[in-house]
Amino acid sequence: MTTYDRVIHNGMIMTVNAGFDIIHDGVVCVRDGIIVTAEARKGPICDYPACGYVDAVGGIIMPGLVNTHVHLPMSIFRGLADDLPLADWLNHHIFPAERDHIRPETVRVGTLLSCAEMMLSGATTCCDGYFHEDIVATAVAETGLRAVLAQGVIDYPAPGVPDPARNIDAASAFVRDWRDRNPRITPSVFCHSPYTCSAETLTAAKAAARNHGVLFQIHVAETRDEATACRSEHGMTPVAYLDRLGILDEQTLIIHGIWVDDDDLEILVKRKASVAHCPESAMKLATGVAPVPRMLKKGVTVGLGTDGCASNNNLDLFGEMDAAAKLHKVVQKDPTVMDARTVIRMATIDGARAIGLDRLVGSIEVGKQADLIIIDTHQPHLTPLYHPESHIVYTARGADVRHVMVSGEILVRDFRPVRIDIGDILDQVEDIARRVYGGQVVNIDENADN
Amino acid sequence: MTTYDRVIHNGMIMTVNAGFDIIHDGVVCVRDGIIVTAEARKGPICDYPACGYVDAVGGIIMPGLVNTHVHLPMSIFRGLADDLPLADWLNHHIFPAERDHIRPETVRVGTLLSCAEMMLSGATTCCDGYFHEDIVATAVAETGLRAVLAQGVIDYPAPGVPDPARNIDAASAFVRDWRDRNPRITPSVFCHSPYTCSAETLTAAKAAARNHGVLFQIHVAETRDEATACRSEHGMTPVAYLDRLGILDEQTLIIHGIWVDDDDLEILVKRKASVAHCPESAMKLATGVAPVPRMLKKGVTVGLGTDGCASNNNLDLFGEMDAAAKLHKVVQKDPTVMDARTVIRMATIDGARAIGLDRLVGSIEVGKQADLIIIDTHQPHLTPLYHPESHIVYTARGADVRHVMVSGEILVRDFRPVRIDIGDILDQVEDIARRVYGGQVVNIDENADN
Repeated sequence: MTTYDRVIHNGMIMTVNAGFDIIHDGVVCVRDGIIVTAEARKGPICDYPACGYVDAVGGIIMPGLVNTHVHLPMSIFRGLADDLPLADWLNHHIFPAERDHIRPETVRVGTLLSCAEMMLSGATTCCDGYFHEDIVATAVAETGLRAVLAQGVIDYPAPGVPDPARNIDAASAFVRDWRDRNPRITPSVFCHSPYTCSAETLTAAKAAARNHGVLFQIHVAETRDEATACRSEHGMTPVAYLDRLGILDEQTLIIHGIWVDDDDLEILVKRKASVAHCPESAMKLATGVAPVPRMLKKGVTVGLGTDGCASNNNLDLFGEMDAAAKLHKVVQKDPTVMDARTVIRMATIDGARAIGLDRLVGSIEVGKQADLIIIDTHQPHLTPLYHPESHIVYTARGADVRHVMVSGEILVRDFRPVRIDIGDILDQVEDIARRVYGGQVVNIDENADN
Repeated sequence: MTTYDRVIHNGMIMTVNAGFDIIHDGVVCVRDGIIVTAEARKGPICDYPACGYVDAVGGIIMPGLVNTHVHLPMSIFRGLADDLPLADWLNHHIFPAERDHIRPETVRVGTLLSCAEMMLSGATTCCDGYFHEDIVATAVAETGLRAVLAQGVIDYPAPGVPDPARNIDAASAFVRDWRDRNPRITPSVFCHSPYTCSAETLTAAKAAARNHGVLFQIHVAETRDEATACRSEHGMTPVAYLDRLGILDEQTLIIHGIWVDDDDLEILVKRKASVAHCPESAMKLATGVAPVPRMLKKGVTVGLGTDGCASNNNLDLFGEMDAAAKLHKVVQKDPTVMDARTVIRMATIDGARAIGLDRLVGSIEVGKQADLIIIDTHQPHLTPLYHPESHIVYTARGADVRHVMVSGEILVRDFRPVRIDIGDILDQVEDIARRVYGGQVVNIDENADN
């Protein structure tokens, strides 16, 4: 009889495999970080000898969630400014805050804060693009999460890259530095957008990504203004413009993709580009509703993303699933679109596919990395339980995640991180927040003394 | 020096008074269930002698949330059926489930489950309409929550009222029975809708409500089909029809109010009727988006509601606040509508006003009942804290509610109910669920054995 490194038992496995199999009283056995068995328990648990057991206490064992779009360091600006016109929010709050406060040390602390929040709410993988990305990668590696990370490319002076002429060199250097450094970190290239990067920058950055064989991420068609400007400048939509530049292929991730027409969707299908759908950010900023049901019908791979904390204002993919399921129903006037299984796939296997990690993670299947989460269903809001997929999308929240595992390593046990020191991270964030706004808590009301 | 029954300290008070005052390092003193002091701490805490202290550990002290529309017993059908066309969902799942399983005992257990969920997610007051309401009221009273409760009136045989001719008698008897029975329970009358009640029933039920001086609740203009049918049958909108019948006044709560035009809004303003806005239910069922920003601009009082668990699928008003803020922004293409303070008012003082309890609850002000909740902000997703109202709407969730108090009585302490036995309630719900679906957990996938 073989001995496993770890056995997870006493729960229902939501595999998110091709058949969306649900395994009652399931057992997941892990060796060397890999899932070697996932089955209905065939005998007493002593038939599955292991160095460690994880008791799912009757809950749901599911793949760790995949956040396909985030800006990790921006968590230090969570809730700094809301309910403002987009240009005002960006130009008078976010850009100045980034200019004044984004430093290697704040990037490090913001990344740790985001990773803490993500693991506590069930995300085991994220896809990030920002600046000082070497610092980001080092911090993510400290936390144990899996990530696709990219140094940002933009034709303006940026944190750590004051000379835009060096932006692609910096992005390439990051890819080279992190290519084989940590099995949980996959480097990538992130061009900010077609309106902040010239055609030359876009094509050179994509060439670098192709040269390295890595994912190319880019914000595309987020706002109506962007789409209108692209049409007047280039005579075509942002997606068509990128296609004309030869940017789009199966290793391209279109972030947002809100202002896209049917011809754009055909291009995405033909080029096999994927989409990161961030419904809560788009709702809060009022940028629009991406035509995700049509994308899915045409066969575009769509993953879910939270976007950065400044625009969401959290990194809870459970909330994002709920919003995605409900938003498209009411907008399409059809309660059957974006059913629970479709949404769960977007938050797991389809998200993994969108960022090129679907052979490693995104489902509970033999041979994949043991990136798992366990949902504690023994709570009023998760009782009764008729259909597990319904609860995951419509009822569960990040706070219901009891255990989290990446490559078989337990990162969260009984709702508490085991590798990182939350108290220390929060103290550091509060120090930064005092500098950002002259005090951790900002009294925005003149009468606050009552 | 006077002694208080209880003093809440070491937190920031979000008063939700007329000026939305925020009091840093605040102290709330309670005597006989009433708030007698709410101020910035003026000296050491021993200057506020009390029989008991509640330490807010640096969090946010705010009014308990008000859920203006719920069907408490329906929590036993949570997640029973989703992602279906509305008529299919109602006729083939919800109505048969109600017919087969709504009994006094299931009503009792479902109500206890809903109350447990509500108090754990920060709601201290709810407004319910259902059947076997005497059982509902008895169960709510057991839990200690505050509620406006109504026996349902409908022109069909209903649970507990097989003869529709007796529906108004039953509703009136409930009001009489509960008028002065429990200070936390306020009886009301609930007519299901203008399409399930005749003109005679509607006017007689409203007359009974007026006679008793209580709130009259009614589902109105929830679906486009309802509005279309009303127009063809009565030649006018549902709101205009109710107005013609003389139903609308300041003690009328319009539930949903989605398919209303500007003339309808003028009627609501003129009659001073209020609206219960249930965005998540309307999104999930794809019934539409109520024109809440226009209602608010015209001066209609709008409260937030979760609707029953069968259509939401939870009773978390924090999620409802987030959805309300974001949905209207993206639909109106304007990120400035439904700002955080407006949404918090809807979930507290405006909700209280909508159901006639604003003189008692809905804000932290001297003379009001001590219905308070304390949010634990020392968590990654609530850090940093620049603007408390931002966190309450966009980031916090029910699970962040540490303490809950109604009339100065602690119902939840350190995330755990102190008066009710959660384990016992969950066990009873699971027994019912097994009967509802032949097993607590339903395997809806044929391949589930993998």
